[in-house]
Amino acid sequence: MTHILSVSVLNKPGVLSRITSLFSRRNFNIDSLNVGETEDPNISRMTIVVRGDDKTLEQVTKQLNKLIDVIKVTELDQNAIVDRDLALIRINCTRNNRTEIIQIADTFRAKVVDVAYDSIMIEVTGTEDKIEALIEILKDFGIKDIVRTGIIALNRGQVIEKKNQKIG
Amino acid sequence: MTHILSVSVLNKPGVLSRITSLFSRRNFNIDSLNVGETEDPNISRMTIVVRGDDKTLEQVTKQLNKLIDVIKVTELDQNAIVDRDLALIRINCTRNNRTEIIQIADTFRAKVVDVAYDSIMIEVTGTEDKIEALIEILKDFGIKDIVRTGIIALNRGQVIEKKNQKIG
Repeated sequence: MTHILSVSVLNKPGVLSRITSLFSRRNFNIDSLNVGETEDPNISRMTIVVRGDDKTLEQVTKQLNKLIDVIKVTELDQNAIVDRDLALIRINCTRNNRTEIIQIADTFRAKVVDVAYDSIMIEVTGTEDKIEALIEILKDFGIKDIVRTGIIALNRGQVIEKKNQKIG
Repeated sequence: MTHILSVSVLNKPGVLSRITSLFSRRNFNIDSLNVGETEDPNISRMTIVVRGDDKTLEQVTKQLNKLIDVIKVTELDQNAIVDRDLALIRINCTRNNRTEIIQIADTFRAKVVDVAYDSIMIEVTGTEDKIEALIEILKDFGIKDIVRTGIIALNRGQVIEKKNQKIG
C-alpha cells in the first residue's frame, strides 16, 4: 500500500540522512521524496511516498517522531488532499513533428519551456496520473531526458465541517 | 556557493540513504532535494541543491560516482538550464480579501486549487525567485501551510552549436 507522509523538520545538516536511513533499515522503498524550505527558513518540509504495510509504517512514524530535529509527522489521507507532481521532459523532435508535440502539450495544459533544433522541453504540473499519461504519449517521439519532483500534498480546507456548524 | 547536482540512480531501497549520508558526513547542508521516477521505472533521478566549497563538492561527487547504485552524477551549469520549483500554499482568507488573493495568484500565473470557508490554496510553478516573491506577498494574509518540491532542472537544448554548424 502507498502512504504519503508529510514531515516537518529543522533545516540542519544530517536530518535528511537520519530520516532516510530509518526507512532503508526497514527495507521500505521510497517511491518519491522531496524536501524544500517553508516560509520559515529554519524549517523544511518533506513529502515522502512509500510503499509498505501499515504496521511497519506505524513503527517508522513513531521512530521519526523520536528524532530530535523532527517537528511533526503526518500521514496524509489520500482522499482529502490536493497532490501535485512537476516534471520537465525533453523530447526528440524534427521540423515535421514539432507542431504535433506542442499540440499534445497544450492538451495537457503543459508549457513548452525550451525549443532547440532537434528537441523540445515541456514543463507539466498535475497529479501523478496526469503526468504519467503524458509521458506515455510522448514516448512515441523518444524521450531524451526527464526529471520529476515527486508528489507534494496538502490537506484540503475543511469546507464541510464549517457548513455543518452553520446548519447546526 | 550553491551547486545543483543531477544524479541518476537505480530505484532500490537504501540508495537515497547512502547518498544523503555522504553529504551529511561532510557537513554539507542540502537546501533542497527531490527524487522521482523516470520513464524507466528501474531508474530514479535526484536533483540536489547544496551549498559548499567547490573542492569538497568535487570529493563528494567522486564518492557518489563510486556508489554501486549511482549511474551518473552531473553538476548542472546554472546559466544553461531550465529550472523549476513547485509549491502548494494555503493562505488564510475571509470574504473580504478572497478576491484580492485570487488576483495576486493570477498575476503570478498561479492556480487556485482549493477554496474553503476561511482559507484558499494556491499552486504555483516557476523559478525559485518567482515562488519566493509570491510567498513574500502572501505572508501579509497569513500563510497556514506551505509545501515545496525544491528545484528540478534540465540542460537547455543546444541551439547555438547547431547554428554554428550550419553557418560553417
